[in-house]
Order: sequence, then structure tokens, then C-alpha cells
Amino acid sequence: MDLHDLIAALPDGAVLTDVDLLASYRQDWARDPGAGTALAVVRATSTDDVAATLRWASAHRVPVIPRGAGSGLSGGATAVDGAIVLTTERMREISVDPVTRTAVVQPGLLNAEVKRAVAEHGLWYPPDPSSFEICSIGGNAATNAGGLCCVKYGVTTDYVLGMQVVLADGTVVRLGGPRLKDSAGLSLTKLFVGSEGTLGVITELTLRLLPAQPPQSTVVASFATLTAATEAILTITGELRPSMLEFMDSVSINAVEDELRMGLDRKAAALLVARSDAPGEFAHREAEIMAAACEKAGATEVFHTEDPAEGEAFTAARRLAIPAVEKLGPLLLEDVGVPLPRLGDLVSGVAEIAERNEVTVSVIAHAGDGNTHPLIVHDPTDADHTARANRAFGEIMDLAIALGGTITGEHGVGRLKKAWLPDQLGPDVMALTRRIKDALDPDGILNPGTIL
Amino acid sequence: MDLHDLIAALPDGAVLTDVDLLASYRQDWARDPGAGTALAVVRATSTDDVAATLRWASAHRVPVIPRGAGSGLSGGATAVDGAIVLTTERMREISVDPVTRTAVVQPGLLNAEVKRAVAEHGLWYPPDPSSFEICSIGGNAATNAGGLCCVKYGVTTDYVLGMQVVLADGTVVRLGGPRLKDSAGLSLTKLFVGSEGTLGVITELTLRLLPAQPPQSTVVASFATLTAATEAILTITGELRPSMLEFMDSVSINAVEDELRMGLDRKAAALLVARSDAPGEFAHREAEIMAAACEKAGATEVFHTEDPAEGEAFTAARRLAIPAVEKLGPLLLEDVGVPLPRLGDLVSGVAEIAERNEVTVSVIAHAGDGNTHPLIVHDPTDADHTARANRAFGEIMDLAIALGGTITGEHGVGRLKKAWLPDQLGPDVMALTRRIKDALDPDGILNPGTIL
Ligand SMILES: Cc1cc2nc3c(=O)[nH]c(=O)nc-3n(C[C@H](O)[C@H](O)[C@H](O)COP(=O)(O)OP(=O)(O)OC[C@H]3O[C@@H](n4cnc5c(N)ncnc54)[C@H](O)[C@@H]3O)c2cc1C
Ligand SMILES: Cc1cc2nc3c(=O)[nH]c(=O)nc-3n(C[C@H](O)[C@H](O)[C@H](O)COP(=O)(O)OP(=O)(O)OC[C@H]3O[C@@H](n4cnc5c(N)ncnc54)[C@H](O)[C@@H]3O)c2cc1C
Repeated sequence: MDLHDLIAALPDGAVLTDVDLLASYRQDWARDPGAGTALAVVRATSTDDVAATLRWASAHRVPVIPRGAGSGLSGGATAVDGAIVLTTERMREISVDPVTRTAVVQPGLLNAEVKRAVAEHGLWYPPDPSSFEICSIGGNAATNAGGLCCVKYGVTTDYVLGMQVVLADGTVVRLGGPRLKDSAGLSLTKLFVGSEGTLGVITELTLRLLPAQPPQSTVVASFATLTAATEAILTITGELRPSMLEFMDSVSINAVEDELRMGLDRKAAALLVARSDAPGEFAHREAEIMAAACEKAGATEVFHTEDPAEGEAFTAARRLAIPAVEKLGPLLLEDVGVPLPRLGDLVSGVAEIAERNEVTVSVIAHAGDGNTHPLIVHDPTDADHTARANRAFGEIMDLAIALGGTITGEHGVGRLKKAWLPDQLGPDVMALTRRIKDALDPDGILNPGTIL
Repeated sequence: MDLHDLIAALPDGAVLTDVDLLASYRQDWARDPGAGTALAVVRATSTDDVAATLRWASAHRVPVIPRGAGSGLSGGATAVDGAIVLTTERMREISVDPVTRTAVVQPGLLNAEVKRAVAEHGLWYPPDPSSFEICSIGGNAATNAGGLCCVKYGVTTDYVLGMQVVLADGTVVRLGGPRLKDSAGLSLTKLFVGSEGTLGVITELTLRLLPAQPPQSTVVASFATLTAATEAILTITGELRPSMLEFMDSVSINAVEDELRMGLDRKAAALLVARSDAPGEFAHREAEIMAAACEKAGATEVFHTEDPAEGEAFTAARRLAIPAVEKLGPLLLEDVGVPLPRLGDLVSGVAEIAERNEVTVSVIAHAGDGNTHPLIVHDPTDADHTARANRAFGEIMDLAIALGGTITGEHGVGRLKKAWLPDQLGPDVMALTRRIKDALDPDGILNPGTIL
């Protein structure tokens, strides 16, 4: 494929074809060994660059893989042989408007950078994936990312008021804007959020912000059984809306403790980290209610602190869970969610699947919204072990579907969960999805193999 | 058109063709004199009835106008000659699950009925259009309805977790479900919310609920000038997030006072009703901050109450504004929104348009989110007056667009604002909208003339 016209249409140095550089854009965090090798990587610096790339790609029917920071866990940004990987990492502008409490951001900024920039104005961008220091805001919008505070504050889509997006043929459209309410036409902004790069490339976002979050009270509780922990979760969510309610199992507690040596209870079957950001002393009161719920459910140890630094240390421990467990071996990362009352069934079902397939599965969860991450440790050098890990991977998704749940609560379908999507959605919803995809990307050049 | 097959496919009495009955389904609350007359009205009792109707309509290329309670203000449910009006008024089931804090409701229930049913479980469905006692929950989802508490709690889409929807060809699909987070596939649920009956007919909704709202503190302030009132609004929203922040101008104050005789200040240029539902004494504290902001902006009178009944009386007064102003004459109802800092420019611009066109325009607003309802009083017996009213109607939308705003914040585009939609969205977004519409409703039978 002759890249001459593409190179000519873009700023100097925007197109990379060096083999080593291409290799570094092959995979996302799921590290799919089946990843292909791109024809080239385009590092766009502007919406115009993105539009020029898509016009060229459309004309030549070359697939385009949009890429943010590559922290995705479902292979959505995995390279495809002969495709262009289009990265937004150089699109890093932001402007904050404290009067309308909105920010206009380019997609390549990291979530943490957005949080910091708005905090300078006393404002808060709530969505907080555990990966907030290594994921882009554009990737967050493309996957409708969740995180720890979602149990109270919702997910990315709740904070996207508008966007600029480049369609498959290079047309640039502006959707929504800095208005809290807007019913003019179809909800296109919301359709593009979570579309995983299959409908267009997001080149700018208008985000809704909140006033700075009040200080949080934190409760940390250890449990001798998984049942006791899930019981505490249900009691807590039945009584109030915590600003965080996170779960770690024994494998992840020990993996994190290996890293941090902060005194987590290595013998516990489960750990809950719960927080409240209710105003003033209400945070303390809510934390007391949560601590009581843990005790009533039979917690072996309950710790309650008003100290923000201490609370943050436990939150950081929870955030470290995926990288820490990853030290045990490569992971197949699940993201299954169930209606909250089925959480116990999901957790015990996962344990049964792990045992039957003789694989280690560590479960961590954004427990308050029923979204769990069973992490399957596998050994790629052992074909039999890999086969069992893959079988467990599918069985866990089957289980979630059987429990009325979802195969992905926040990471997206990507390439790795695609095979299970029809089981969850059914043929009619798949056909509906296909009709929208075909209407917006008739040549199928945008992120082929993702979702569909 | 032979209705025999349609009648045979539906329960007895589902198909109405009586001329007087048809007349009562001709218009919505906007009372568009250009409304057509339907071929028949179908009162569906189930999803199956809706599917049978759409299969029949598709086969015969007969337009279908989905209809909830007909309280819409933009002519979205207006009958079209030769069409079927498909009303959901008989689909009235609800089940509430306090454990997952969700409700599964059929579309024909009124918003107020949903609120009451969930309140029995100590739960709260926040979205509260002023019309909550006369609008259906299905209509709310189809228009992405807003209301008074949206300034803090968001709009209908923020509470819709899933739905059942019947597509143009009669296919029934189930989208989303009782899961707080779900990234499996495109955000189709969100696409159908706000689609005004142009993409499918909603036959069931899964709604997210919150714990009961805490008691509210209420501040009522009168202002001698519009500028002082808009200044107070900006100060309040800059300092905190009220649970309600509503605006009435002099015409609406007097119209409401004519109805209620509750002692509103008839000489005031503007009235603000602001509330806080922060927990415990924080509601009182926030109300004090809001009262101080009003005083600083030069309010002529500020009243502050902790009494829920008193607060509710002022809220009810604000809700009565549209029907009260309507007593002055038929209304052209605007729904323009602007980024909050432009609110003053919008309000003064509307006054200028009213004066220049010699028409009375009363402005009420969900001020906290920049969404205003200029109500143009017109005299349909006077052709010249009607022409001036229509000119003002268009000029107000032009003004909103020029201020970076929207022609509709919450009522939807319907038939009456359609002509201005391209001015706001531009040709590329219109084309994108058309592609989605054509993909989902290739024969264009669903609510033709609405939005597009
Ligand atoms: C340790 C760890 C913890 C994590 N924790 C969480 C968590 O708590 N919650 C959560 O939701 N996720 C979590 N993730 C997953 C991941 O960080 C998120 O999915 C994130 O939103 C991906 O952002 P990214 O910039 O890395 O996107 P990428 O991985 O680069 O891409 C993700 C998808 O988005 C598309 N995309 C990226 N940018 C654009 C764009 N501008 N326009 C269109 N499409 C685009 C890609 O094509 C791909 O399909 C975690 C990941 C790791 C490694
Ligand atoms: C006095 C008054 C005050 C109001 N205040 C507010 C307010 O504060 N906020 C606000 O947002 N609105 C307000 N409205 C407008 C109106 O009540 C809302 O738009 C409401 O959501 C319409 O619901 P409905 O059941 O009456 O719908 P209808 O008027 O019957 O229909 C509205 C639109 O939705 C479509 N539709 C209805 N049901 C379905 C379905 N099941 N499936 C698919 N499409 C469907 C129709 O085709 C039409 O396009 C007010 C109206 C009045 C009269």
C-alpha cells in the first residue's frame, strides 16, 4: 500500500512505519497474542489530521484502529494486519469554564490530567477508572468507562455533554455542547459514547463537571467468607449510596500485600473498601452505618477512618489489584456484571468454574454496582492450561448471562468478548447494531472486528 | 384503507374509528391547528398489540404516530391524515424491586403514578416535568423529559437502564436491563431515549431509582429587574447545586396569582423559587447561601422556609405557570436553552423580540440549567397578530442558536420546531440523523414529519 498521499496530507512525523515503533502499538493491556501488525501508525495532532486520515483510509478501504492510551482490557485497540493505527496521544488540549462547569478536552489527555486541570478551578470530573493515570479521556468516552465512584456518580456517558467526532468518510460533526439539557434531534452524543471506535473517531469532548468532592470517610472490612462479604454489600447498598464500595478476594489481597506491605489481612477471604462523601459529619454517620453492616454480616475486622490520606491508601491498594495479580502470570480479564442481588451467585459460580477448570481466578469488583473482574491467571507456555483458562473465560460470561447479567460492565466488548455478545443480546439486537454500523460506516473501515 | 386485518390481529375494542373519538386524539398540548385526522386509533394493551400494529402498518406502508398521554408541547404526537395513532394509555403495569432499586414499567403509566408506586417502597424516581400528573412515562422517555429537579438530578435518560422497544417492522427488542453498568454493544437504549417515536415504540422501561429525597428547604425571592434575577441565578449555581432553581417573569407571576391568590408579589419583574435537599441541616445552610445570593443581587423580598408544605406550594405555583398563562390566550410554546452565562442575554433578547413584534411573551424557566420557556400569547382570530407571533417564535429560536444554545431543552423537536433544527445542527448532523432513521425505519412509517 502506497502511503505517499497519506504522508503528504499530514504534518511531518505524523506517520510512523518503523517496525519497532509499530510493535509498540500492536496490543492494548489485554496483550492479545493474536494481534496483527499495522501498516502504519498515525499520530494525529488535530481534528484535521484525523479527518485527512479517514478520508485517505476510506478512499483506499484501509481499516483504521482508533487508539487512545492503549490501556483497554478487551482488545479494542489491538492492531489488525494492514490497518492504520490512529492514535490521539498528541491531542492534549483542555480549557475549563468554571461558570458553566464544563471542560472542552482533546481525546489524548489522560483521565488524571483532566482531573488535575479541572481541580485547579475547584471542580471535579468524577469518572475514575482504576487506570486513571494511564488511560485517555477519549478512550474513556469510547468505552463508556466506569470506575470506583460510579456507584454514586454514574459512568462516563453521564458526563459527556457534547463531542466532535470524525465519521468514517472524514466528515467532521459536532454533537451536543455545553448545555445541561438539549433535546434537539436524536441522542447522537450518547450513541457515540461506548461505541469503541466502530462509528467514528472522537476528537473533542465537552464534559460536565461537579463542584469538588467533599472529603470522604472510609471503612475497610475483612471477611472470613465470601458469603459474609456479599451480604454486607447488599445491606450497605440497601441503606445508602456509598461514594465507593469495592471488593477484593483473597488472591488479590495477597498480591497487593506483596507489593505494598501495608498490613492487609492475608488470611481474609474478602476485603471491602467503602467510602462516603456525604457533606460534613454525614460522611462519618454513613461510614458508621456501613461499618455496622459489615459487623452484622460477620466481618472479622472493621476499620474506620476520617483521614483522607489513609482512605486514599486503601483506595490505591484496590486500584493496584489488576497489576498486582498480573505478576502471578498473564491474565484473561473478565468484566462481568449482574443485578446486585445475584452478586453472591456470581462470585460462588466463578469459584466453581475456577475449581473445575483447575485455574486460578482472582475476583475483584466494583461491588456496589454488581460489576466484577474475575482475573484468570494463565500460563501461555502450557497449551493445556491455556485451553482450560480460555474455557473458564467463556464459562464465566455464560454464567453472567444466565444470571441476567452482562459480559461487560465497563471495559467494552472489544475483540476478546465479541463471540459472547450475541448470547447476551440475541439476534435481533445484533441485527439492529449491524444496521447502525452499516449506516455509519458502510465500508466497515472503522475498527473492524470490534463489537461486530 | 381496509382495517379488517388490523382489527382481527388485535383484542376487541382496541381499534377506534369513531369520528369523535378520533378527534380527541388529533392534537397534543401544543394544539397545532394543522393537525390531520387519523385513519384509526389503536389502544394497545401489550407489546404484542404494538408489534401486530407495526407489522400491519409496515405491510401497508401506513404511518404510525406513537402517543402517550398527549401532553407534548411540540406537536410530536399530532395526528397525520391517514395514519394510525398508536396510544399506550392502556399499558399500565409496574413492578418495583427495592433490592436493585429499579422499576419495570409499561409506557402508559403517568409519571406521577410511577413516583407514587416507587414511593411506597421508600424510593424516588427523580425526573419531574411540570406536567407530571398528565404525562406518560413512555412519553417522558420518548422526549427525554426534564423538569424541576434536573438541575441536580439530571433528565430522563439518566434513569433509563433498559427498555423493550418495537421496531418499525414489528420486531421486538430488549435493550439494557436492571444493571447499573452495561457496556455490551452500542448504547442503543440511550439512542431510543429522546427519539420522539421516530425509531421505535417503547413498550416497557427499566428505571433506576434513588432512595427517597430528603426534605427540602425553600427560598422564594422577588426582583425588580430581570438583570437582578439572572445575576442571582449565576451566583447560586456558581456556589452550589440546588435541587431546584426556577424562574417566573411578571406576566406568569400575575397569571398564577390570578389562579391561586397566594400573595405572590404582582409588581415583581421576576420571581425565583430555589430549593436544597442536602442532608440534615445542610439543606438549611444551602438555602441561606441562596437567600444571601438573592439579597446581594438586589432582591426586593426574600422568603426562606423549612416547611415542606409551604415549599411545595411555591413549587406547585411554578408548575401552574403554563396553564395559567394559557388563560390569556393560545400559546406558542418555546423551550430554548443556552449555556448558563448567556441566560441574561436570552431573557433580554426575548423581551426585545416581543416588543418589536408587538406580542406578549411570558418567560418561565428551569433557570438553573439555562432552559427557558418563552410563552408567546397569540390571537388565532387575528391573522396579522398570528403572523407576528409566528415570526417571534422563529426569532426566539434563531436567538438561542446565535447564543450557542438549543431550540429545545426538553420538549423535543416534534413537528413544530423541525424547520429550525437544521440551523442548529447543520447539514452534516442532519445527514447523520437521516442515515440512522433510514437504517431503522426504511419505509419511514414511524412518526413521519417529526424531527426530520
Ligand atoms: C490496571 C487497569 C485498571 C483498569 N480499571 C478500569 C476501571 O476501573 N474502569 C474501566 O472502565 N476501565 C478500566 N480499565 C480499562 C481501560 O483503562 C479503559 O477501558 C479506558 O477507558 C481505555 O482508555 P484508553 O485511552 O487506554 O483506550 P484504548 O485502550 O486505547 O482504546 C479503547 C477503545 O476505545 C477506542 N478509542 C480510543 N480512543 C478513541 C477515540 N478518540 N475515538 C474513538 N475511539 C477511541 C479504541 O478503538 C478501543 O476500542 C483498566 C485498565 C487497566 C490496565
Ligand atoms: C403544563 C405542561 C407542563 C410541562 N412541563 C414540562 C417539563 O417541565 N419538562 C418537560 O420535559 N416537559 C414538559 N411538558 C411537556 C410534556 O409533558 C413532555 O414532553 C412529556 O414527556 C410528554 O409525555 P406524553 O406522554 O404526554 O407524550 P405525548 O405528547 O403523547 O408524545 C410525545 C412524543 O413522544 C412520542 N411517544 C409517546 N409515547 C411513546 C412511546 N411509548 N414510544 C415511542 N414514542 C412515544 C410521541 O410520538 C411524541 O413524539 C409539559 C407539558 C405541559 C402541558
